[in-house]
Amino acid sequence: MDRTLAQEAIGRIGEAVEVAGWVHRVRNLGGVVFVILRDRSGMIQLVTDGEFPLPVESVIQARGTIAANDKAPGGAEVRLESYDVLAEAAPDLPVPVNQDPASLGLDAILDHRMISLRNPKIQSIFRIQATCVKAFGEFFRSQGFTEIKSSKIIGGGSEGGTNLFSMDYFGQTAYLAQSPQLYKQTMVASGLERVFEIGHAYRAEKHETPRHINEYVSLDIEMGFIESEKPLMEMERRFMAYLFETVAQENAQDLDVWGATVPSPESCENAPIISHDEAKAIFKAETGKRALDVNPEAERVLCDWAEREHGIPMVFVNAFPRRKRPFYTYPDGQKTMSFDLLFRGLEITTGGRRINEYSMFQDALAKFGMTEQELGAYVDIFKYGCPPHGGFAIGLERITQKILGLANIKEATLFPRDRKRVSP
Amino acid sequence: MDRTLAQEAIGRIGEAVEVAGWVHRVRNLGGVVFVILRDRSGMIQLVTDGEFPLPVESVIQARGTIAANDKAPGGAEVRLESYDVLAEAAPDLPVPVNQDPASLGLDAILDHRMISLRNPKIQSIFRIQATCVKAFGEFFRSQGFTEIKSSKIIGGGSEGGTNLFSMDYFGQTAYLAQSPQLYKQTMVASGLERVFEIGHAYRAEKHETPRHINEYVSLDIEMGFIESEKPLMEMERRFMAYLFETVAQENAQDLDVWGATVPSPESCENAPIISHDEAKAIFKAETGKRALDVNPEAERVLCDWAEREHGIPMVFVNAFPRRKRPFYTYPDGQKTMSFDLLFRGLEITTGGRRINEYSMFQDALAKFGMTEQELGAYVDIFKYGCPPHGGFAIGLERITQKILGLANIKEATLFPRDRKRVSP
Repeated sequence: MDRTLAQEAIGRIGEAVEVAGWVHRVRNLGGVVFVILRDRSGMIQLVTDGEFPLPVESVIQARGTIAANDKAPGGAEVRLESYDVLAEAAPDLPVPVNQDPASLGLDAILDHRMISLRNPKIQSIFRIQATCVKAFGEFFRSQGFTEIKSSKIIGGGSEGGTNLFSMDYFGQTAYLAQSPQLYKQTMVASGLERVFEIGHAYRAEKHETPRHINEYVSLDIEMGFIESEKPLMEMERRFMAYLFETVAQENAQDLDVWGATVPSPESCENAPIISHDEAKAIFKAETGKRALDVNPEAERVLCDWAEREHGIPMVFVNAFPRRKRPFYTYPDGQKTMSFDLLFRGLEITTGGRRINEYSMFQDALAKFGMTEQELGAYVDIFKYGCPPHGGFAIGLERITQKILGLANIKEATLFPRDRKRVSP
Repeated sequence: MDRTLAQEAIGRIGEAVEVAGWVHRVRNLGGVVFVILRDRSGMIQLVTDGEFPLPVESVIQARGTIAANDKAPGGAEVRLESYDVLAEAAPDLPVPVNQDPASLGLDAILDHRMISLRNPKIQSIFRIQATCVKAFGEFFRSQGFTEIKSSKIIGGGSEGGTNLFSMDYFGQTAYLAQSPQLYKQTMVASGLERVFEIGHAYRAEKHETPRHINEYVSLDIEMGFIESEKPLMEMERRFMAYLFETVAQENAQDLDVWGATVPSPESCENAPIISHDEAKAIFKAETGKRALDVNPEAERVLCDWAEREHGIPMVFVNAFPRRKRPFYTYPDGQKTMSFDLLFRGLEITTGGRRINEYSMFQDALAKFGMTEQELGAYVDIFKYGCPPHGGFAIGLERITQKILGLANIKEATLFPRDRKRVSP
């Protein structure tokens, strides 16, 4: 008999079916046993007046007839006739799967990750994350971007970055890339012009914050023939609208489980663009305090301000001072053609126009105390004809976190890596 | 004025336009200069009777009127009126961009990767590769699979593998994952049932072959509720058909440049399934030689045989002996429920059903001299209810290589990593 998924049951009232999945919950009400079975599509209730001795999380294949029942999940239940045990679970489950994960601490959730990922509420996080990845690819393909896959093992710290993880590479020292910056620029300059990459990025920083992890997925784009950061912000604004629309359509239930909503696609139009100086002034006006930079507190204050004044908790901050941005950022007097995007109190994107003229590139190296030698082949990009260009990167885990309102970015990471955690 | 792309020119005959791109080639025919300009969409010819002193690869923005010209690429040319130089290239281009890369050795192509990637024929490789990634995501999403992103930094060699790259992780030793095997299985067992991942995999093997690289992109799937490797082969057969259909539709020009074709989607139906024993027998019958295993020579012979006998150079080999497969492979007597897919003489996929019963898992560990301790949290997957399941992985660079008939897998890798090469 073909397998029926939980969500298909409501369409097959009266039919004899076979269902399969995990025993999510068992309730014995004096002679009648209700078994909630979990499969990839959702939950279905099985009812029997016989015995049901299996521990939760056991996997079974069950046969019976579907009957309507308003009180059962999905509005239908299976009157159980027989079942086979595909895998019996041990009874000593280290963390519960069928309870709200809020009752567990984050450490318990991560220490027992193989089991906590079975929790439907936790799975919702990763269904939303999958939609973010899909929407990113769809949107940028529709704009003429080509997907690339660049190397994550690099011979040197080509962005002039510190805090790189080092590794032994057949006897030489190599590093894990902190971003695909160099490679994105190569591909723009190659003539592909518009590229995107979905890949891991690594930061060997000893952070202990709710917003940092040491390995994350970076949603990167880079595009040619732009003369400032403005077209990048416009592109990202349109992507965010597409993302919110897609998540609202495809993950309504997952949002519901967390009591979360996404801004309307139309409201993305209203997200303000303010300069770094304006950002500090707004922070001052809102809090009475001076900020030397757009720090985490300022990010929250600015998003609250944007929501109140513009109807969306999202704000672009541009015109950062040069000393606050990497050497390759395109200068604009003492400022730069760069921006961050803040969403619900968190920086989710950094981007900007990059230097493309070789002579300006040489000046920037000198100013930042760097040499062409240490950058190796990176220099060739600029020496042999590179159009004006720029790009940005969105942190996948951060945007997932903020869509759902999760307290810690590690909740939005399947197998997070932090200072102490390198398994499972 | 809005920019017109090269491929749009044919639709705008008689109009004044602005085009932009790289100076790909300059021909001076006694008073008339023909400039071929390259942009992300293709090539367009500019014609002028003035001077054109710029080196190739310089980036310009040019204005003029479009005229029909059958002899020009795309059937139209721009009568040049004026242009701006966006970036002048140095005249000492280390490798030519506008010639067939066959005239260069592989080392020159890789040593000057920033420049060789500008070659349109080389770019075609990566446009095809981008389509492979896209088609993989589209196909498996359509089959109810959820995309995951698992960690590439792991605390131990959970597959019992050797040849792992090691790294320093905040004072402890960690490794780069050789595959997402453990994590795919976790997510199947979690209840997601069907997952796929597109991500890097690492092998610290000292190979020097045209088919190995040390960092590659693995297209991975894993699915629950299957009792043998047969549904996996069927799933892959359908994916291959979808892939060939998509590449033929979207990359006709890229295939053309390489004189390549893909098998018809329908012919994928005919790809035979033979056992490991049959594979050796066919090799013997074809060559008169005995093979102890399906080695690279046998892979070529078997694909030639499949093409001659079944009309497609693609063959599934299943029922591998147990000692040739990893410990987690589901046994079937002395054989296993596992398979490889060979395409055009190269193994592009390894897959199979995995052990899901805890007691069988414990037996397998004992047989392979392993312990639960060394596998850590991996064991929990099986202890707490894991359905029958299996999966496979396709090497992205290998499939790209074989679609185009490239001699070396490094040609199908943007920034390949081998024993000696860790940059650019």
